[in-house]
Amino acid sequence: MQVYLDNSATTKPYKEVVDEMIISLSDEFYNPSAAYRNGFEVEKKIKSIRKNIANTLAVEDKNIIFTSGGTESNNAIIRSVCKNNKKMNHIITTEIEHPAVLNTVKDLEDKGYRLTILKVDNKGIIDLKELEDSIDENTALVSVMFVNNEIGCIEPISKISKIIRGKNPNTKFHVDAVQAYGKINFKLNDLDIDFMSVSSHKIHGPKGIGFMYIKDINKFNAFLTGGGQESNLRSGTENVPGIYGMGRAIDILYKDLDKTIEKIRDNKIYLYNSIKENIKDIVVNSDVENGVCHVLNITFKGVKGEVLLHFLEGDGICVSTGSACSAKKKGSHVLNAIGLNEADIDGAIRFSLSEDNTKEEIDYVVEKLKNHIEDIRLLSKFKRR
Amino acid sequence: MQVYLDNSATTKPYKEVVDEMIISLSDEFYNPSAAYRNGFEVEKKIKSIRKNIANTLAVEDKNIIFTSGGTESNNAIIRSVCKNNKKMNHIITTEIEHPAVLNTVKDLEDKGYRLTILKVDNKGIIDLKELEDSIDENTALVSVMFVNNEIGCIEPISKISKIIRGKNPNTKFHVDAVQAYGKINFKLNDLDIDFMSVSSHKIHGPKGIGFMYIKDINKFNAFLTGGGQESNLRSGTENVPGIYGMGRAIDILYKDLDKTIEKIRDNKIYLYNSIKENIKDIVVNSDVENGVCHVLNITFKGVKGEVLLHFLEGDGICVSTGSACSAKKKGSHVLNAIGLNEADIDGAIRFSLSEDNTKEEIDYVVEKLKNHIEDIRLLSKFKRR
Repeated sequence: MQVYLDNSATTKPYKEVVDEMIISLSDEFYNPSAAYRNGFEVEKKIKSIRKNIANTLAVEDKNIIFTSGGTESNNAIIRSVCKNNKKMNHIITTEIEHPAVLNTVKDLEDKGYRLTILKVDNKGIIDLKELEDSIDENTALVSVMFVNNEIGCIEPISKISKIIRGKNPNTKFHVDAVQAYGKINFKLNDLDIDFMSVSSHKIHGPKGIGFMYIKDINKFNAFLTGGGQESNLRSGTENVPGIYGMGRAIDILYKDLDKTIEKIRDNKIYLYNSIKENIKDIVVNSDVENGVCHVLNITFKGVKGEVLLHFLEGDGICVSTGSACSAKKKGSHVLNAIGLNEADIDGAIRFSLSEDNTKEEIDYVVEKLKNHIEDIRLLSKFKRR
Repeated sequence: MQVYLDNSATTKPYKEVVDEMIISLSDEFYNPSAAYRNGFEVEKKIKSIRKNIANTLAVEDKNIIFTSGGTESNNAIIRSVCKNNKKMNHIITTEIEHPAVLNTVKDLEDKGYRLTILKVDNKGIIDLKELEDSIDENTALVSVMFVNNEIGCIEPISKISKIIRGKNPNTKFHVDAVQAYGKINFKLNDLDIDFMSVSSHKIHGPKGIGFMYIKDINKFNAFLTGGGQESNLRSGTENVPGIYGMGRAIDILYKDLDKTIEKIRDNKIYLYNSIKENIKDIVVNSDVENGVCHVLNITFKGVKGEVLLHFLEGDGICVSTGSACSAKKKGSHVLNAIGLNEADIDGAIRFSLSEDNTKEEIDYVVEKLKNHIEDIRLLSKFKRR
C-alpha cells in the first residue's frame, strides 16, 4: 500500500489539473501578450481564473497577482513594503515562520532593519500583548503566518490585525497563508490584512506557481520589473500552464471546501486517536482540536524520527520529520520554539493529510508505526516511563 | 493552414516536453527536499537535468541556477550585482535591451545608480569605442543582450567582454541570452562572461521556468531567500514540472543543434527572398545575413503593421508587430533606436521562425502577405516610390 502523508511538503496535483495544463502546453501555448486572437484567448482565460480566485477570498481580481510561488510572494511583499518605508525601519515577525519569511527579514536586518521576533507559547500561538507592546511608530511590517507548516497551529489573524490597526495605522500586515488557503474557509474582508501569500503546490496544483493578495496595488513596489505583466506589479511572461493548473485546483477545492476540510479533519482525529490507543510514550506537538485540519505532529519517545521515517518508507508510507524545506537540516526551529527538548525534537514525525487519505490507509500506517516503534525502542533500549 | 511565426514571443512545447511534465505532475510529484526515496529520485533527476544544461554551455552544473524565467534571471542578476557593489554605482546597458533589463536598470537609476545607455547603429550593434569610453572605476555592471528580440541582431559578446576585462577587472558582465540560447551554438568558455539569463518558453519548453548562469556563485547575493534551495542562491520549492520540461526541450534541441539552426536560417532566407521578390516598397529592419537564424523584421511601407497582423490572423497566420511584451503598447524602442521614422515603425512586422516551419507554410504566408498589402495600400492610397 502507498500512503502519502506529507501533504504539507507538497500535494499530488488533481488529474484535472494535469489535463488543464496539457491544454495550455499544446493547443493554447500562445503568449497572452500577443496581439492576435489566440493570445487574447489565453489572456481571457487567465483573467477568468484570477476572478475565480478572487471570489474564493471575496476580494477584487485586481488584488490577486500571480507569482512563482509562496517564497516569491513572501519575498516580494516583505521586500516591497520595506522599500516603501525607508523611515519606518522596524519589522515584527514570529519565531515559527517559514524560512521564506524568517530568512528574508533576517536579510533585511543585515541591511539595517530593526527586527522583533515574537515568541510563541507551547501550542505555537503568539502573545497578543507582546505583539501590541512591540509595535511602535516605526513598525513598517508585521508578518505572521496563518497556519504553521510543522505543527498546524492557527494564529489569531483577525485579532492581530485589530491590534495593529489600533496601535499604528501605517503598519502593514502580511499573512503567509501557504498552509491555510484551502485548509481553512476564510474570506479576506473578515480579516483586514494588507498582504497574503499562497502557493499552488500545497493545494493539489502544480509547483512553480502561486499568488499574492495585495490590498493597495497603487502603493506596491514591483519586485520583478520588466514587460509590465500583472498590472506592472510582477513582470515576466505569465506561467500559463501553472496558472491554468492552479486555477483548476482551486475550482475543484472550493466546490465543497467545508466538506473537504471536515473529511481531512475527521481523518486526522482518527489518526490521532488510533496512535494514542496503540502507542505509548508519545508527545503530541499539535493542538489537535484547535489546529488546522491536516497537520498532526507527534514525538515518539526513544525513537529517532529520521530512522522511523525510513522504516515507514519501506512500507510505502511517506511522512516527514519536519518541514520539507528543513528536512535535510538538523533540528526544527518550530519544535524548539514550542519548548521541546532536543530528544523530543529528534523523535518528532509530521503527518500531513489530504482529502485523498482513507481510514484504511490510516489503519495501515498505525499498524506499521506500532511495529516499527516497538522494534526501534527495543534496539535503543528505551525505558518506559 | 495554421502558420505560427511568432516564436520570439513564445514557442510551442515539444510533445516530449509535455509528456515529461505529466510524469512530474503525477508519478513524480514529490518534493525534492523530502527525506524519503521518492523525493531523492526527483532531486536526482533535477541534478541530472542541471548537468545536461551545464554541458550545453561547457560549464559546471553548480553554475546553473533555476529561476522562474528570463525576467527573474535578469532581475536577480542585475539587482544582486548592484547590491554587492554599493561603492560602484555605475551601470552600462544598451538602448535595445528587453524591458526586463531596461526597466530594472531604470529602477536602480531611481535609487541613485548612474546609468549609461549605449546607442546602437542602424543594424542594432553597439559601438565598442563608446562602450570602452563609458567604463570607469565605478562601473559595477555591463548588461548587453546577446540577440535582440525584435530585429535579431547579434551583439559582439566576446569583444565586449575583452573590452570590459581590459578596462576594469572588477566590472561584471551580464548577457541576456533569452533569444540566443538554442539559436546560436555557443559555449561559455569562449565568451568570458559573469552572468547569463535564459528562458525555457523560447526554446519549446514550458513557460514559468528558466535559468541563470552565475560564474562566481560564492559572491552571489540571493534574490529570493528562504528554504535554501538551489545552493541557497534561489529559494522556493523547485518548479519540478518546469525543470523536467525545460530539461527535455534542451535535450531535444541540442541533439542536433547546428542542423536545426541551419534549417531555421534557410527558411528565414527563403522567406526574405520570397518577400523581396513579391512585395515592393519594403524596408528590411534585420541584418538578414549576420543576424540570428530565426528573426526577420520587415517594414511594409504604407501599411499599418497592426492592421496587417489582423488580416494575417484571419488566414491562420501568427506574426507580431514588435515584441510580445510591447505588442499592446505603442511604438518600438528598438526600431526607433536603429533610426526608423514613426511611419516605418508602424509598418513593421516581425516574423520569427522555429524548426517546425516549412517552405510550404512560407509560400502560403507570402501569398497572403502580398494580397493583403495590395489591398491595404489601395485603401490607404499609398503612393509607390
